[in-house]
Amino acid sequence: MAGTFPADLPEPPYYAVIFPSQRPPGDPDDGYAEMAARMVELATRQDGYLGHESVREVDGRGVTISYWRDEAAIAAWRNHPEHVEARRRGRAGWYRDWAIRVCRVERAYRA
Amino acid sequence: MAGTFPADLPEPPYYAVIFPSQRPPGDPDDGYAEMAARMVELATRQDGYLGHESVREVDGRGVTISYWRDEAAIAAWRNHPEHVEARRRGRAGWYRDWAIRVCRVERAYRA
Repeated sequence: MAGTFPADLPEPPYYAVIFPSQRPPGDPDDGYAEMAARMVELATRQDGYLGHESVREVDGRGVTISYWRDEAAIAAWRNHPEHVEARRRGRAGWYRDWAIRVCRVERAYRA
Repeated sequence: MAGTFPADLPEPPYYAVIFPSQRPPGDPDDGYAEMAARMVELATRQDGYLGHESVREVDGRGVTISYWRDEAAIAAWRNHPEHVEARRRGRAGWYRDWAIRVCRVERAYRA
């Protein structure tokens, strides 16, 4: 994953897209890694992209969170043609299960 | 981790606490795993707890997201004495870096 961890973000409010996904265990060589790297490359160039965090365990459970300036930036990324195609392939087999949750980040701090 | 993955949650709105954290690599035997299991046990019993997702890679980067009915439920969990102590120990050495982001989940779906 490119970038800092945790992501280095501006002061809230901003938006987060939480994406938990279940891959098959063992990271099978099915083109997923190349797609994931390409999606990072594209997302980071989108207007309104603020950062992301992405973690996956060897059992296939993963969480990616991307951070955006506003809802318009999320919509533009959702409509990017390569992202649309990546989601289609995700539904077709890369993922066994997943969810998408769009959130408004109200506050952020170090505990 | 107990529970389903992705977490099985009610319809939005509800709240999410995003907690990315950097542990030392290799999951050192420093009492962290026992604390983490205890926090799950306690959190799931809290009024207003809806679910959680927690993933950590072998390099030590992890993301835990907990979901709550409302801000009052987040505040009550934040003030739980054992949770306060766990955060103190986290700051004292379990974590190298971390962030906390409190969000209102506006909508959720499968892409």
